Amino acid sequence: MKKLLFIPAVLFLFLTAQSQQKLMGFTDANAAKQLDWEKQFDALIKPSNQDEWMKFLSSHPHHVGSPQDKANAEYMANLFRSWGYQTEIESYYPLFPTPKTRVLEIVGDKSYKPKLQESAVPGDRTSGQYSEQLPSYNAYSADGDVTAELVFVNRGVPADYEELARMGVDVKGKIVIAKYGGSWRGIKPKVAYEHGAIGCIIYSDPADDGYVQGDVYPEGPFKPKDGVQRGSVMDMPVYPGDPLTPDVGATKDAKRLDRKEVVTIMKIPVLPISYADAQPLLQLLKGQPVPAAWRGGLPLTYHVGPSTQKVHLKLEFNWDLKQLYNVIAKMPGTELPDQWIIRGNHHDGWVNGAGDPLSGMVAEMEEARAISELVKQGYKPKRTIVFCAWDGEEPALLGSTEWAEDHQQELKQKAVVYINSDGNGRGFIYASGSHTLEPFFNGIADEVMDPQTNVSIKERRYAGFMTSADPATRNKMMGNKNIRLSALGAGSDYSSFLQHLGIASMDVAFGGEDPGGEYHSIYDSYDLFVRFKDPGFHYGAAMSKTAGRITMRLANADVIPVSFRSFYKTVNGYVSEVKSLLDNSRSQTETENKMIKENLFVLAHDPTKPYVPPVEKEAVPFLNFSELDNAMVQLGDASDQFEKLYAGATQLPATKQNRLNEVLYKAERSLINPGGLPRRSWYKHEIYAPGYYTGYGVKTLPGIREAIEQRNWKEAQENIGIVARTIKAYTDQVNAAIALLK
Amino acid sequence: MKKLLFIPAVLFLFLTAQSQQKLMGFTDANAAKQLDWEKQFDALIKPSNQDEWMKFLSSHPHHVGSPQDKANAEYMANLFRSWGYQTEIESYYPLFPTPKTRVLEIVGDKSYKPKLQESAVPGDRTSGQYSEQLPSYNAYSADGDVTAELVFVNRGVPADYEELARMGVDVKGKIVIAKYGGSWRGIKPKVAYEHGAIGCIIYSDPADDGYVQGDVYPEGPFKPKDGVQRGSVMDMPVYPGDPLTPDVGATKDAKRLDRKEVVTIMKIPVLPISYADAQPLLQLLKGQPVPAAWRGGLPLTYHVGPSTQKVHLKLEFNWDLKQLYNVIAKMPGTELPDQWIIRGNHHDGWVNGAGDPLSGMVAEMEEARAISELVKQGYKPKRTIVFCAWDGEEPALLGSTEWAEDHQQELKQKAVVYINSDGNGRGFIYASGSHTLEPFFNGIADEVMDPQTNVSIKERRYAGFMTSADPATRNKMMGNKNIRLSALGAGSDYSSFLQHLGIASMDVAFGGEDPGGEYHSIYDSYDLFVRFKDPGFHYGAAMSKTAGRITMRLANADVIPVSFRSFYKTVNGYVSEVKSLLDNSRSQTETENKMIKENLFVLAHDPTKPYVPPVEKEAVPFLNFSELDNAMVQLGDASDQFEKLYAGATQLPATKQNRLNEVLYKAERSLINPGGLPRRSWYKHEIYAPGYYTGYGVKTLPGIREAIEQRNWKEAQENIGIVARTIKAYTDQVNAAIALLK
Repeated sequence: MKKLLFIPAVLFLFLTAQSQQKLMGFTDANAAKQLDWEKQFDALIKPSNQDEWMKFLSSHPHHVGSPQDKANAEYMANLFRSWGYQTEIESYYPLFPTPKTRVLEIVGDKSYKPKLQESAVPGDRTSGQYSEQLPSYNAYSADGDVTAELVFVNRGVPADYEELARMGVDVKGKIVIAKYGGSWRGIKPKVAYEHGAIGCIIYSDPADDGYVQGDVYPEGPFKPKDGVQRGSVMDMPVYPGDPLTPDVGATKDAKRLDRKEVVTIMKIPVLPISYADAQPLLQLLKGQPVPAAWRGGLPLTYHVGPSTQKVHLKLEFNWDLKQLYNVIAKMPGTELPDQWIIRGNHHDGWVNGAGDPLSGMVAEMEEARAISELVKQGYKPKRTIVFCAWDGEEPALLGSTEWAEDHQQELKQKAVVYINSDGNGRGFIYASGSHTLEPFFNGIADEVMDPQTNVSIKERRYAGFMTSADPATRNKMMGNKNIRLSALGAGSDYSSFLQHLGIASMDVAFGGEDPGGEYHSIYDSYDLFVRFKDPGFHYGAAMSKTAGRITMRLANADVIPVSFRSFYKTVNGYVSEVKSLLDNSRSQTETENKMIKENLFVLAHDPTKPYVPPVEKEAVPFLNFSELDNAMVQLGDASDQFEKLYAGATQLPATKQNRLNEVLYKAERSLINPGGLPRRSWYKHEIYAPGYYTGYGVKTLPGIREAIEQRNWKEAQENIGIVARTIKAYTDQVNAAIALLK
Repeated sequence: MKKLLFIPAVLFLFLTAQSQQKLMGFTDANAAKQLDWEKQFDALIKPSNQDEWMKFLSSHPHHVGSPQDKANAEYMANLFRSWGYQTEIESYYPLFPTPKTRVLEIVGDKSYKPKLQESAVPGDRTSGQYSEQLPSYNAYSADGDVTAELVFVNRGVPADYEELARMGVDVKGKIVIAKYGGSWRGIKPKVAYEHGAIGCIIYSDPADDGYVQGDVYPEGPFKPKDGVQRGSVMDMPVYPGDPLTPDVGATKDAKRLDRKEVVTIMKIPVLPISYADAQPLLQLLKGQPVPAAWRGGLPLTYHVGPSTQKVHLKLEFNWDLKQLYNVIAKMPGTELPDQWIIRGNHHDGWVNGAGDPLSGMVAEMEEARAISELVKQGYKPKRTIVFCAWDGEEPALLGSTEWAEDHQQELKQKAVVYINSDGNGRGFIYASGSHTLEPFFNGIADEVMDPQTNVSIKERRYAGFMTSADPATRNKMMGNKNIRLSALGAGSDYSSFLQHLGIASMDVAFGGEDPGGEYHSIYDSYDLFVRFKDPGFHYGAAMSKTAGRITMRLANADVIPVSFRSFYKTVNGYVSEVKSLLDNSRSQTETENKMIKENLFVLAHDPTKPYVPPVEKEAVPFLNFSELDNAMVQLGDASDQFEKLYAGATQLPATKQNRLNEVLYKAERSLINPGGLPRRSWYKHEIYAPGYYTGYGVKTLPGIREAIEQRNWKEAQENIGIVARTIKAYTDQVNAAIALLK
């Protein structure tokens, strides 16, 4: 008998709320209805609509401040209105610099004539719209006029400067040239400035997205020699949005900082260039050849520099306020109108922006159209659905940030989940988000079919994962098809919702079979997109089915489908990671200090080359994790208990269920620390933040992790306490939910 | 008391014979004398001699058959004679093809004009000796006249063809173009032929030794655009040496095979070219872009092909016998003249051959000169020292192989150890060899000082190892300065001695701070060498001190300094490796078969690209290793026992010591299996062989390892038995030594 009892007990661990219900968060009766609506929704999705809308929206450059940007907002607003949505264009007025002067020259060398201009391409109908295109530049670069020797700094991240220091190379008073990639671009001038550089050039190396990767446009989708990646270099890891109005909406009459007070605008001039323009600059560099990992794909020997000849970089910008046009389209909920499911994608592009952002935008529009058709047929979203088309994402997440800041009180009350996309292409499903949503998302991924194969997007992703894994991982993961959500860093419009306001968020996209080098260039066009990115918009349709399903299920669930257990497990993994980070740092420091004492670095180094050996580092202390460990145990117990009770939630009486739902979706708010993270109080989420020195790249448990990385032991210890208290506050919410369920 | 007893017992494991004696294999009195002679030896070593000799020997191209080749042999023979050595020039007459016709063209494209000619370089005094240079070619290519489409095959090893098959690309009837590197060059046409290709072009990609790696000659040491690597493509993994006279010396009247019967001559035409000549050919290739790991450093997108245009390759050779000039210089032993310590390096080059081989050759000459000086001062080598300067190494280890085959009976009796070098440069000590010699060699490495730092070559190598290791390895290896000998594969003149005759061998070189792209090109010149390889010949002097010490210590040791324990430990590691290879192969086959059954490879693949999915493989059986495991236990016990008794060996009475010495140096002979390895009976060593499909790369326990790799389970099982019986025969020798010591 014991044995028989034992077996169900083991199985119980695998029985999630999900598997006990037809559909997570739905009564069986409502689940049947919901699945039926979703089937009808799928049938309504038309790739041809996405094609038509993209063709119009990408027909002219549509960056912030352009006529087409406004025209697109109006075009979309009219469509949303025609589908029955309560639609408004909400405008904000942030600072958005555009170039007035761009000079790059080699002093005393008349033969260097950088084009600083991308060339039109045969067969691409919009690449020749020169007069309407924003010139290639980095937004929020400083004005500047500098002349200095050039130094090559690889990706321009802190580790690269450590390597340069070992080689005896200093960038003080120099202009640095960095390759795109390896970090968010804004990190490059920021770190260069911190090391004393007076100017920064960023170029696209062909090894990263040019001919090394594949055929260049128009033969293939990769970057041709004159292609330039535009992009923002604002210090968004400190705060995104309008630099003049942190924390508040950039309304017409908002109180604004003086531009000189702003910390997020770069302190040195920064210019992005093509690899054709970069090659003669790289050929100027003398000094040691670069470390092997720094090499690019140009046919030359890369050297660290400095250059013998000087380079002159002069940049001036128009520092204007520009009007943004956010399109906000609401379908009020029939039962719970004050609970909002928000679905967004931006609509502004750097140039014609077909892939980025329109491929995601047109998928969202098709979701909205199909839902409106369902409503005509009797579908009733319980909660309010809010479709957003953000403006000004490219410069600094301007539209979403200003809107979220402006509406923050209402959003804190009403926002259940924010669902983001930012472009889409052919391939595999990629999903990131708050880990409470992981089992819910897996339920979605089981039902959307991959357009190219006869399996679900989850099955295909599993196939992709397994075939690219090493043998050990294959053995370990065989049969485990669960999609783990990635943690959200930054780089798109979910940032304000998640990291400033504590609204559970997701970001979804298909990709992996749509590589290219068109990103933020004039080549991100309709013509390129339909040849190389998602011919036939089949993955646009899959995106509509995926994000539309997420939206509709969240809008209609009887009980919000959260799993505190998934959150607990994931965060527990992060706690182990930061402990390992500290332990590894300790043993590495010990070993390296011993090696330094024994002079091994000097002995090993080629004595004919300049070398500055590393110096001994302070020993890494042991930190007290007990408060966090105890908090995690409490959360683990509570989340287990909640998991067991969750199935009963759909049976609660209405008022109790309503109170429960509010607890559930507001639980994420308790992960917000009102004081914010060290040195960047705008970022308030204690679990997820963009890396202070990586940009897009997420840092989980950022307060602890970055303090350890920066060897700030006092701050690390303080942040262990802060995270522990945050986890306790979160556990209180889980316990409140349990109390309602008992 | 127990505790006190326990400590010495543990320590005992670390007390090797070495640490109980002043000098391994010497009585204390003799050790003191020996160390004194070695000190005087060091003082005699003059870098300037090496400089002078290299200048003369590299003054003109000195390949087999050239006037300078003969002149160099006579120059060296005269020097050896002048130093008092019994010197002979021993000639053999192998087949050595040279080019008559070299045509490479793109059919119908007059603009493609491959130079097939390296250009003279300003400041390099020998690079313009066009009329004396061998044209760039691959020796032992087939004659052929073929026209076909071109296919890119990466490195041209079997795994590359598997990848091509996945991509739906077949090389049958095609000409393949392969990058140098990743295998011995002869593997490329051999595998191409096995897959049905009719011609093979090999080129030097700039990513491997051109501008990607560093500045090209004359600015730096890397390969300029017209540089070509010459080299043999004979199928030496089957047998090296004269293709017409396997197993016997190619004397004037030796019985010769008909050229048509020879299996080691390539079956298809093969031509090496420069990257300047390769670029237009690579630009012809259509089809899919290559996998990321296959990319090179030329400024183009690499495609697998086939090409749309055809390529015409026509090669004809003069199939002549050429005279070789081996210089053999003997210093007879005063006590044990029939025990030979053989020290060799080759003297022929592909062109001017300064680095390869002369940098090693002149170090050896300086060893010989210094020893002769010591002899004048009273030094008496107990055993005979034989200095060899081999001819014809480059085409196929011709000189050493024919000499070893010709003298095999005498060598089996007399040869104690063969010590090889094949060029030398600035940097760290690299040593390979029979693992019985590992503790002995570490004793040498403790005493030779690194010319650039103030530490021993062992200390510097440890510093180099530690600083380039990952953190986990650093922690593990901290303080462990022991140099592990690498296993000997092939690629230089030790091959006949070790792998055909079972003579314990070593190969030593300095390097790592002397990179370049001059290998087998006209740029391997005196001028390049003294600028970039070993300015001042300081490492030439270190080489003389290292190899000279090895020679002198072996010549004078009272007891041959062998460690069966080191051999046991290393071979035990190899046994674990082949078991893991089998187990990993089994679990990988299981996993992949499951993945194939679930269609994961097809589901994961981009359906717009051609793809041939893998098919299920036969399951990997369990093999019976018990005979080998038991044999290893016996060897372990015997080697432990020998280790404990070894220190007493120097105290044995002379006759017993002589009998012991003979047992010790002949023990390696028992690793020879007279039947040889499967499909290549010339290779008879059961522990070390060059890889059948890797060439230079060693395969340890080759009979077992390669059978597992080729999934030939029956042969693997048979070879486990063969190795087990070989180990038993070896253990018998160890036991015979123990019996003499008891």
